[in-house]
Amino acid sequence: MAGTEVTNRQVLFKNYVVGWPKESDMEVVTTTKKLELREGQKDVILKVLYLSCDPYQRGRMRDSLDSYIPPFTPGKPLDGYGVGKVVLSNDPDFKENDIVEGLMAWEEYSLGFKLTKIESDAVPVSYYLGALGMAGFTAYVGFFHVCQPKKGETIYVSAASGAVGQMVGQFAKLFGCHVVGSAGSAQKVDLLKNKFGYDEAFNYKEEPDLDAALKRYCPEGIDMYFENVGGKMLDAVLMNMKVFGRIAVCGMVSQYNNVEQDPIYNLNYTVKRRIKIQGFLQSDFVHLRPEFKKTVVEWFKEKKLEYVEDMADGIEKGPAALIGMLAGKNVGKQGIKVADN
Amino acid sequence: MAGTEVTNRQVLFKNYVVGWPKESDMEVVTTTKKLELREGQKDVILKVLYLSCDPYQRGRMRDSLDSYIPPFTPGKPLDGYGVGKVVLSNDPDFKENDIVEGLMAWEEYSLGFKLTKIESDAVPVSYYLGALGMAGFTAYVGFFHVCQPKKGETIYVSAASGAVGQMVGQFAKLFGCHVVGSAGSAQKVDLLKNKFGYDEAFNYKEEPDLDAALKRYCPEGIDMYFENVGGKMLDAVLMNMKVFGRIAVCGMVSQYNNVEQDPIYNLNYTVKRRIKIQGFLQSDFVHLRPEFKKTVVEWFKEKKLEYVEDMADGIEKGPAALIGMLAGKNVGKQGIKVADN
Ligand SMILES: NC(=O)c1ccc[n+]([C@@H]2O[C@H](COP(=O)([O-])OP(=O)(O)OC[C@H]3O[C@@H](n4cnc5c(N)ncnc54)[C@H](OP(=O)(O)O)[C@@H]3O)[C@@H](O)[C@H]2O)c1
Ligand SMILES: NC(=O)c1ccc[n+]([C@@H]2O[C@H](COP(=O)([O-])OP(=O)(O)OC[C@H]3O[C@@H](n4cnc5c(N)ncnc54)[C@H](OP(=O)(O)O)[C@@H]3O)[C@@H](O)[C@H]2O)c1
Repeated sequence: MAGTEVTNRQVLFKNYVVGWPKESDMEVVTTTKKLELREGQKDVILKVLYLSCDPYQRGRMRDSLDSYIPPFTPGKPLDGYGVGKVVLSNDPDFKENDIVEGLMAWEEYSLGFKLTKIESDAVPVSYYLGALGMAGFTAYVGFFHVCQPKKGETIYVSAASGAVGQMVGQFAKLFGCHVVGSAGSAQKVDLLKNKFGYDEAFNYKEEPDLDAALKRYCPEGIDMYFENVGGKMLDAVLMNMKVFGRIAVCGMVSQYNNVEQDPIYNLNYTVKRRIKIQGFLQSDFVHLRPEFKKTVVEWFKEKKLEYVEDMADGIEKGPAALIGMLAGKNVGKQGIKVADN
Repeated sequence: MAGTEVTNRQVLFKNYVVGWPKESDMEVVTTTKKLELREGQKDVILKVLYLSCDPYQRGRMRDSLDSYIPPFTPGKPLDGYGVGKVVLSNDPDFKENDIVEGLMAWEEYSLGFKLTKIESDAVPVSYYLGALGMAGFTAYVGFFHVCQPKKGETIYVSAASGAVGQMVGQFAKLFGCHVVGSAGSAQKVDLLKNKFGYDEAFNYKEEPDLDAALKRYCPEGIDMYFENVGGKMLDAVLMNMKVFGRIAVCGMVSQYNNVEQDPIYNLNYTVKRRIKIQGFLQSDFVHLRPEFKKTVVEWFKEKKLEYVEDMADGIEKGPAALIGMLAGKNVGKQGIKVADN
């Protein structure tokens, strides 16, 4: 392969975004690239197979360094998690044709970073975007380590059918919790109940009064809230937390495109109900990744878990897939299939 | 004493309050009372010496059962923490002339509940309203057990010169933290710096931009926030928390008289900074009270602690003292001296 010139379509980030991103904030271009390893570098060049669309990527479209991750560079391809096949490597840990997961650019041939070889063929490799990738790991550490669950407790999950949410609910059922979730369409609510085993589920878009909905679906209150959305939902949940309840703040996707954040009024409940609210990032728990993969691959083998993906076909569908996911068009984990392996 | 009829002034609660309470929401009446123990009850009748004015008592003026403590009863005296002298007892644990702390009504002669005998004369008995009472204990558990302090960390305390705040700052200094506080007057700021040993202190009422003030006084950010006030201060603090910072939510006194709570916009910081926000009630830590008293009495004996009280003179000053405290008129722990012991 070395020295070969390939056609290399890329998704470029055009400029910083205020409010809702549009497809035109990204651009799909066709370039050519000479596949070459740089001397003295541990380069690994990948043929990109799958790319992951993740809410945190919205944060990277902002012109701000006040985050845990730097913004995208205008004029350069987006980047993020993905799965690829090694085409060239001078890193002794990877050889041609290895299938790997890690960080890569939104282009057909990319350098890979922080790669891990996918050893097992127990699950489809695309699962390493979601169930066994960053999203599944987020669900794992958020549920088992941040929520501090006890058997029999009630957990409520928002964005419950998404990449992270579907795993949280299933982990919580396996652990022995009573699991309630919400999502934004009838189809998603159906998945929650009939595929992911949620005990109760509702479409929050059909609930004009979220407080009343939560009282209906969690009549005894909420022990743990797995927070994916923020805003009005968080405010309603605060009023429904039980004494000594825990809120694991994973993300607030309903706020990512807001210029101003929605107000929260009910933090006074933290004292009278002794609530703990804890923000977390999966990246602070990397030491648990091996344990996570081993456990979750096993659970898939034992058919204890399901996973639903929503795969856009072709890198040129990337911008629409990313924006659609932020608007809730995805049913399950949103990814982009770039090539067959 | 048994059978004696005494003059018994009382502070009655008149009716539920919306918004700011007024003195006229309470009434001072002069009644008479026959000092009598009820047969078959472990009654202890006290001559009340000191009564404590506490922010949580505002919550008890609300017609709501949605709290950890029931409301006052219209037409009956207020009640709360206090110090008294036993005049009659058929509880074998207490005998005439014992000085005790615990719960009692706002009247000159009251039944006592949840009493503890004050054994040591190392500190003035009035300290059992504050430094060695509920406020000091709140500071103790909030700082040592909820904040999870590490030496060298920066703690920021609001309402820092108050009953709780002055103890938090001093505990934090003794522990080895960098301590910053805010309060509502120049006199209070002076106390913070020159009596309680705060490293930095400011008058929040003179800071039109709280975010800028916090950046000035905590240029490297805040590891722990001891939250006493809520509202705009909390919102500004969220933007100034360090990664892995902790917020111990003790109370939100700036909100207690609001009909609608102030909005909070910055909870999105919980994720990127991995902040833990934890509400707590001192009453969940009763098992630590003996340890607390022993430790803090010792520290007073060793002259490691100071305590400032603001004592209204006479039970008839009770309503003004309570309302004044909610408005920040108190300099130090607000109490009412009802009688000499
Ligand atoms: N802390 C971490 O380390 C970490 C790591 C990964 C992900 N996250 C966070 O986890 C959350 C879920 O991410 P994901 O990858 O699993 O995405 P996802 O749930 O698969 O997709 C995003 C979903 O958000 C929901 N949504 C969009 N706008 C909304 C709104 N205004 N109100 C309520 N829901 C809305 C939509 O579902 P509906 O149709 O149900 O509305 C949409 O499908 C996000 O907040 C993300 O930032 C955090
Ligand atoms: N969780 C628990 O178990 C527990 C137990 C005891 C107390 N607490 C809480 O601890 C906090 C302090 O109580 P404390 O007994 O020590 O009272 P305190 O601080 O002695 O007195 C109340 C003080 O609050 C401040 N304040 C009033 N309105 C304010 C506003 N709008 N903005 C900012 N500050 C305002 C005033 O001081 P400035 O002049 O500085 O404004 C006032 O002196 C309260 O929130 C209380 O509810 C909680």
